[in-house]
Amino acid sequence: MSFDLKGWMYQRQDAVERALSQWVPKDAPAGLGEAMRYAVLDGGKRLRPLLVFAAAEVSGGARSLWSHEAAMRAACAVELIHAYSLVHDDMPCMDNDVLRRGKPTVHVKFGEAQALLAGDALQALAFEILVSGEPSRVPPAVQARQCKILAQAAGSNGMAGGQAIDLAAVGRELPEEELRRMHQLKTGALLQASVALGAACVQLDEPQGKWLMRYGQSLGLAFQVVDDILDVTADTATLGKTAGKDAAADKPTYVSVMGMDGARSLARELHRDAIAALACSGLGGTAALRALADVVIKRDH
Amino acid sequence: MSFDLKGWMYQRQDAVERALSQWVPKDAPAGLGEAMRYAVLDGGKRLRPLLVFAAAEVSGGARSLWSHEAAMRAACAVELIHAYSLVHDDMPCMDNDVLRRGKPTVHVKFGEAQALLAGDALQALAFEILVSGEPSRVPPAVQARQCKILAQAAGSNGMAGGQAIDLAAVGRELPEEELRRMHQLKTGALLQASVALGAACVQLDEPQGKWLMRYGQSLGLAFQVVDDILDVTADTATLGKTAGKDAAADKPTYVSVMGMDGARSLARELHRDAIAALACSGLGGTAALRALADVVIKRDH
Repeated sequence: MSFDLKGWMYQRQDAVERALSQWVPKDAPAGLGEAMRYAVLDGGKRLRPLLVFAAAEVSGGARSLWSHEAAMRAACAVELIHAYSLVHDDMPCMDNDVLRRGKPTVHVKFGEAQALLAGDALQALAFEILVSGEPSRVPPAVQARQCKILAQAAGSNGMAGGQAIDLAAVGRELPEEELRRMHQLKTGALLQASVALGAACVQLDEPQGKWLMRYGQSLGLAFQVVDDILDVTADTATLGKTAGKDAAADKPTYVSVMGMDGARSLARELHRDAIAALACSGLGGTAALRALADVVIKRDH
Repeated sequence: MSFDLKGWMYQRQDAVERALSQWVPKDAPAGLGEAMRYAVLDGGKRLRPLLVFAAAEVSGGARSLWSHEAAMRAACAVELIHAYSLVHDDMPCMDNDVLRRGKPTVHVKFGEAQALLAGDALQALAFEILVSGEPSRVPPAVQARQCKILAQAAGSNGMAGGQAIDLAAVGRELPEEELRRMHQLKTGALLQASVALGAACVQLDEPQGKWLMRYGQSLGLAFQVVDDILDVTADTATLGKTAGKDAAADKPTYVSVMGMDGARSLARELHRDAIAALACSGLGGTAALRALADVVIKRDH
């Protein structure tokens, strides 16, 4: 029987939506909760949560009673980090973007100061959710481990560091190696962390875990290469964000560095790498991970 | 023998300075590490770390081999949250301040975008430090508990929420009760969390813990009342930040709401509350906590 990706995704996207709606507070003071919910709820592909679930569902590791709750908390936490990064990234002092997921960006809707605070509060909430599981249900060692994975991926040697390279790179030519490092941190670190957060919900032996990380690394980079391709080929309506903005901002991209053909061929190569890593892992139950790799390559937004 | 506060403070400030210098990365990409270190190192009274240590050193609880490491990690983590909040607070879209601890603010020195990223990365680092203790040394349950205390204090129903009220309050008259709630969140939550983080390093029984929290709450509020008094009475050179800026920004303060005499009398009352809570706790070894309450009331900057 073939894997029903649509059904699998729908169920999990729906569950994440409901969990986020419950966890992102309605009643935070002075409109802050409203801004946070606007930034997080309703929209987004939820790719990172889906990766958490897919990794947590591989067979071959030991699944426990707490695996499901730990995966759900991690799925929401990583999405909150992603959402906060978009809010801050869109601000005037960064990318100065007015459109996100087809809606006005948070600072356009709520003002810059509230956007700054909403991003800050979403980051804190991500860590709070990870460590708020009842110790009787999710072992504290798992909570602490997931918290460390997420903090490292979000911080100065992860996403924030990648954004700093991005800032410094405007108007400069980057060699492909440096471009790869920028993206590995800026986008790749959090995608890879999603896989690692899911893997932390099941006990894998070390080689299995390493192959999963390899999958996450290839997938993370493939995602960014495809992003750069779409920035050139897709239109604003399809993307739900401003198209062509990297070229307009004179930012180096895979397309500007390798040409369109080179970028497309790199994306295919990274996709093959990701699938091969799953095969090498010897793990069963990887249909969702394989299908998500296809989604990343074939997406049009 | 009387308590040697100066010696006690100096030793711990020095240890925190060294730990922070080790933990805040020099080598984060594209100047990000430099901005983070500028925001954190060299300056600051380190009041929050001192509160962590003072609470972790009360006698009457069970001290373990890991208590010292857990207190040091928490002391640095809470200071990183405090430092990130100052960086974001000073930005043009918030308080638009150019002077902090007698130096140009981070966005003046490194640009707005880098300041935004440095703040974001400092918050992530705070949580990373809390959960990076070897599980063999700091029990994961303590790591997870401290992480939850800090995340709640920093988030939308803590510091970030207080800042949102502050934003919304500019130019409005606030009744004293609402002013109190704003400060309890904006400044009080993190000061109270410092005491709670320290208390988590020793096992206290429930009434002892509750009295310590009461101490933290009174101290946190007293801190803000004194801040408002100093904003009127001190000059910019003594404060190391721009004096009179609350009045200039038409922000409600304890002085504007209660008058100078009322604010001074409230500060004294809160100080008495804090000291009384320590007495009620029945804990020994509270000399440092008592001395820090005096410091908060009697400080001139």
